[in-house]
This record gives sequence, structure tokens and C-alpha cells, in this order.
Amino acid sequence: MGAGSGTVGLRTVREANLGVVLRTVRESAPCSRAAVAAATGLNKTTVSSLVADLMARGLVRETGRTEQHGVGRPGVLLDLDDTSVAALGLEVNVDYLSVVAVDLVQRELTARHTPFDAREAGPRESARRIVAALREAADDPAVRGRTVVGAGIAVPALVDSPTGTVRRAPNLGWSDFPLGESVDVLGFPVRVDNDANLGAVAEYRVGSFAGTPDLVYVTGEVGIGAGVLTGGSLLRGSGGFAGELGHLELDPGGPECSCGRRGCLEAVAGIGAILRDAVPDLAPGRPLSGEEVAALVEAAVGRAAAGGAVAVAALERAGTRLGRGLAALVNLVDPGLVLLGGYFVPMGPWLLPRCRAALASGVFAAGPAGCRVEPSALGLSAAARGGAAGVIHALDSGALPLPAAAGTA
Amino acid sequence: MGAGSGTVGLRTVREANLGVVLRTVRESAPCSRAAVAAATGLNKTTVSSLVADLMARGLVRETGRTEQHGVGRPGVLLDLDDTSVAALGLEVNVDYLSVVAVDLVQRELTARHTPFDAREAGPRESARRIVAALREAADDPAVRGRTVVGAGIAVPALVDSPTGTVRRAPNLGWSDFPLGESVDVLGFPVRVDNDANLGAVAEYRVGSFAGTPDLVYVTGEVGIGAGVLTGGSLLRGSGGFAGELGHLELDPGGPECSCGRRGCLEAVAGIGAILRDAVPDLAPGRPLSGEEVAALVEAAVGRAAAGGAVAVAALERAGTRLGRGLAALVNLVDPGLVLLGGYFVPMGPWLLPRCRAALASGVFAAGPAGCRVEPSALGLSAAARGGAAGVIHALDSGALPLPAAAGTA
Repeated sequence: MGAGSGTVGLRTVREANLGVVLRTVRESAPCSRAAVAAATGLNKTTVSSLVADLMARGLVRETGRTEQHGVGRPGVLLDLDDTSVAALGLEVNVDYLSVVAVDLVQRELTARHTPFDAREAGPRESARRIVAALREAADDPAVRGRTVVGAGIAVPALVDSPTGTVRRAPNLGWSDFPLGESVDVLGFPVRVDNDANLGAVAEYRVGSFAGTPDLVYVTGEVGIGAGVLTGGSLLRGSGGFAGELGHLELDPGGPECSCGRRGCLEAVAGIGAILRDAVPDLAPGRPLSGEEVAALVEAAVGRAAAGGAVAVAALERAGTRLGRGLAALVNLVDPGLVLLGGYFVPMGPWLLPRCRAALASGVFAAGPAGCRVEPSALGLSAAARGGAAGVIHALDSGALPLPAAAGTA
Repeated sequence: MGAGSGTVGLRTVREANLGVVLRTVRESAPCSRAAVAAATGLNKTTVSSLVADLMARGLVRETGRTEQHGVGRPGVLLDLDDTSVAALGLEVNVDYLSVVAVDLVQRELTARHTPFDAREAGPRESARRIVAALREAADDPAVRGRTVVGAGIAVPALVDSPTGTVRRAPNLGWSDFPLGESVDVLGFPVRVDNDANLGAVAEYRVGSFAGTPDLVYVTGEVGIGAGVLTGGSLLRGSGGFAGELGHLELDPGGPECSCGRRGCLEAVAGIGAILRDAVPDLAPGRPLSGEEVAALVEAAVGRAAAGGAVAVAALERAGTRLGRGLAALVNLVDPGLVLLGGYFVPMGPWLLPRCRAALASGVFAAGPAGCRVEPSALGLSAAARGGAAGVIHALDSGALPLPAAAGTA
């Protein structure tokens, strides 16, 4: 049954099988080695060797309990080892730095959210802050002593994810910055990706609709981006630049966008645009600083909640615009579910009804292919959670860290 | 190394392996059974049994030549049997019926293009015509005597492809018609899909850019649809309705669309809209009949070629609109290549320059993710070719016909 294995090296086959066994333990724990063998079709000797390897790496442990199957020795039950490794995730955005650590079962060990102005700091200083934040997280009492198996970094940017180079981040003012290279001093692998992509990964792995294979996560920050998951995989496109929902032309004569063009969705329904419209007396005409954004969102939502007509009308207008933008996405990609993240979550009560109505009236296949729009439950840490979740998921695909002794942070 | 095979039935494994061997012969022919074993990792006894099965089905043949590898008996060389089977493809559109037959190496055996007004005929009469056209093709001198292994039917519609039900085809005036069921009288399997999807399959398998895994095929008929290929697979979305490029809102106050909304891309840059703009004295105000479309396209292209200012300006305007629509697609999906099909091909000399310019100015990632736009070389038979190509490709995945004796059309 080894069709195709002739083209695969032995090391790769072993890694793939380590991933298969890890995934099987994740799905069926507690389970015996014999049960793993039965579920995977691998023979028992191979399974025992793979399990020993996974135990040495701190990924699988024996529970101490046994299970009797027919005659012969009782099988020792295995489970994931949720005490030995950790994965980190970090998001750097226009106005904050968000860091999380999770264990092997995607449980959050620690999380921090810090106001940070990545535009003012510039890419080099931001890279230094990212390294410091990841070191701090690895040294957090809840993480210390674990092997950090990797980190995922989210940036609101076109990212060349194989190299970790940030190609273009208009809202940060960065371009062609080798972020992956700049943070490669941590002793564990680091992967850089687009914030919306990692938000989609987080929704798929740990969000309220986890396991939904076709979904879109939309960032609600100063920029708007979409992470598109189809059949459980990220839609990256030929250059890795799919999902640029924010730069959809919505209003040809509209206001100037950070990208230099006019009337992009993000220029009329990004958080900056919404705030200028919702709290015009408080929002300055210039780009907002990191700390201003959070404060102004709170003010806008507070006024809308108190029935302030200007704020309510602004949020409703933004909802309609967002719905028109989503209609283009749904007509082209047909996800069954769109999750609105970031600051769109607190604005949801005013944004969502208009957004859903505009979407429904703009979608050709509205009847058969109705698309739900829901607020994300992951808040501002979605992309960071996705960065960490992606590292854990990569283990299941056989991208394993070195044995425990060698890979500690 | 049989990870995962525990969950797969033996018949399925054998079918998958038949596909693997067929694919290997396709890629490496002429080649011996021993070479197939080496390339696939399957053992020689298994390969011999699978090859015997493929020969009985008329898919693989012995060339009569041999090859000496080291000591032992010389190996008989195998090749694809391009004389025994055929696959059919058919497209029904607003103004024509197009049928092709291909052999196992995707060579065209026969092709017919007939003016046909599927709107006027209605779905039941159209289904009868489709059955007749497929029977005629199977009985064509170039096809007769071969086993027809299946047919793919293309419709400009939202199609529920697992069941073959046409959900919504506004340009044909059909809705919720069980086309797959209605044509299931032919003695070979028939699969119904969206015309743009099958156009994309055709481009990937037999077009000028065959093998490009990320590409979009855009239909240039009365309707505009997009078939999106990512990583060599069709992007279908959660309900199978992805790629509805024609119903992207381009001009909110624009003309009414067949779908009932206003300003859709297809209402301002579909062939009907272009003709009303390019040859206003010839084009009637009502929807065009099947035969009118082809004649008016010829007239419009003729006038543009002769320097007619009205025709040239209309085609250029359509090019700009199309480029704006493509920009949304490229921002969201990032294909590296867009192929314009159908009547956009003869209109290309006037359409393409403006289309490319509008696309470039509307794409956020224009620099790093530049997207080529080219005319399709497959003409009006692209979707039909895709239908047939998909049937042949399914063989490589193990979806095999019955042994030759039992499955003849």
C-alpha cells in the first residue's frame, strides 16, 4: 500500500508518521499503542518506536492507566503531554502588541496585550520589541520550564511567509522588511504571516465555530484584511497575497486610502474611517496613534450605546459598506461563514444588522449559499492565538521540534 | 507505511492504486512494469495485477517493445492505450451547444459547435437536445467503437455539482432543474458543472498555460463567470457557488442585470451589454437570441477593426470595466494568471490593453503579485473541453469505468 512512497525520503516518512501518531493520540486519547496501530494501519513495532520518540520530545505521555484488549498484556494508555511544550503567538498591529502562549492542547497559558505604536517605532525597533515580548512570554511563570516549539507572528501586511519578509504594510508604513530574519535569534523557529490569515487559523482551531472548513476571518483594525479558509486550508493565491479585502474599490470617488488609491473598503469602513465619522469631535484628522484607537473605539461604542445619533448612524453606515465589501468576497469565494474580528466586535450591535442586510442583497447565490456573519469570540488576540495554534497544528503534520533536551528556549 | 489505510476499504485502495499506476504510465510512458513498481513503491506482483486490470479496461497497452534492466527477463514497455476509450464534453450556453470528444491523452477526436437558444428551448427540451448531441458524438466515426467513459456538461449557472441540479441560470431563465437526472439515460456517467469551472479545468489540462496551478478562467458570453483554480484544484466554496464574478457590483446606479439587481459587472461588460454599446444600430433592446449574438460580435469586431470610433470606444470601455472587476478578484484570490474566454477573445485587441491597465491600478499587491491577463486559446469550446478533460483526469484518480466489454456506449 506504499503508493507514492518511492519518492519520499525515509526521514520524511518517519516525520509524517510521527505526525500521524501524534494526531491519532490527540483524537483518541486515552488510547493504547495497539489502538494507535489499529487506527493508523502502522505495525505495532513501528508504533512503539514512534511513541518512544514522541515521549522523548515531550509530546506524548503514558497516563499510568491500562486497558485490557482480549488476551495478552494489558495496554498502557497514552495521552498528549500537556505539561512539556508551549507555542507562542504574537500580533503586532497599528496600535498594539498582543502575545499568547498555549500548550499542546491549545489551552492558553498566558496572554498579554500592550498598547504599541508600530508605525512610530518603525520596523527595526518593532522587531526588537517583538523579540523582547516573545522572550518575556517564554520566561513567564506559566511557560518557564517548557520547551518552546515555535512562534507565529502576525502582521497586518502582505507577507512573503516562506521567508518572513514583510512586503507591504501601508498602515504600519513598513515595506520590504525582513522581519523573519530580524527575529531569528530566539532558539526556536518563528514564522511570520498575515494577521487575517492567522485570525482564520485561530477561528478554525479554537474559535466558536472551530472545525468549520470554509470560513473567512475579517480583521477589524485600522486596516481590513480577510483570511480565507477553504476546505480547512488557507487560500494564499499564487503570490501569497490573497484576502486583500480592505483594498477592494467600494466608492471610486471616495476618500484617499493608506495605499494611495481612493475609495477602498478600508478607507470608508476601517476603524480609522469609522471613528472620524462616529466621534468627529474627538478624532483628529491625521492617522490615529496606537493609544488613541482603543480610547476612541470605547468612546464611539459608549455614545452609540447611549443612543447618540451621530455615532449610531456612523456605525450603521459602516455596516452597510462592510456588507457591500463582503458581498464581493462571498460572490467570489462562497464561504459559509464570515467572522468579524478586532474592533468590529464591540461595534457589532450597530454594525451587524446593516452588514448582514447589505450582504444578503449583494450576493447572487443568496438563496442556496446563504452566508452567516458573526462576531469573533477571540477579541483582539485572535491573530496571536492563530500564530500559536498554527505552531501546534504543524506538529500534527510532522514538523516536530528537536528532542526535549536540545530545544529548550 | 500504510498510515491511514486502516480507514480505507480494500476496493477503494485498489481503485486508488489503479489510478496511481495509470498516472505513472501517463507520466513516464513508455515504461516497464518494473519501472512502475520502482516509481510507485508498489510491489511487482501488485503492479502486474493492476496493469492487467488497466489493460482489460482499455486504458493501458503493451507497446510491443522491451527494455533490458540489469539481468533477468527484458521488461515489456507499457503506454497509454489511446485507441479504446473516449470522454465527451458538452457546453450549453445562451446561444450555442458545443460538443467535443477526446481520447485518453486528451487529443480531440471530434468537435461540433451548433447555434442553439437554450433560453427559448427551456430546460426540458434542452436536456433532450443535450442527450441527442452526446449520442451523436458517441456515434461519430472518430468515436464509434470506443468505450465512452463519461461526459462532462457545462452550464452557465449555479450548479449543485454532486447532484447535477442547475440551481439558478438567469441568462437561460432556468432554475432548480435536475439536469443531471434528466440526462442519466446514456449508459455512461455524466457530471454537470458550472461553465467557468470547466473552462478553468480545460486551461489547466490542455490550454496554452496548461499546468499553471493558480489561474482563473473568465467566461466571455452573455454572462460572465470565473472558474478559480488554486493549487491545481477548483475553488468551489462552501455551497459550490464560488466564482460569481459577473454579479460583482461595479456601478451601484448602473443598468439592470438579469439577476434582478443593478450595475453588476455582467450588466455593464457582458457580451450583451458590450454589443448594445458597440453596435447600437444593430443590437435590439431585448435580450439577444442565440444566433444574434455570434453575428453581432462579428459585426462589432469588424467595425472596430475598420477603425469605427463607436465600436472601438465601446470595447475599450468594456475593457476598463472588466479590469475593475478583475481587480476585486485578484485582490481577494491572487491568481497569477487570468484567461479571458469566449467572445472576449475576438474582442481582445481592443479590450485587453484597457483591462490590464485598470487591473494594475486596482490591485493592492500589484508590485509583488502582478497578474497576467491573456486571451484563452480554447475559443468557444473551452468549457466543453473542460468537461471532457475532467472525465479523463478522474480516471487518474481511480474513478474507472467498468471493464471494456461491459461499458460500451
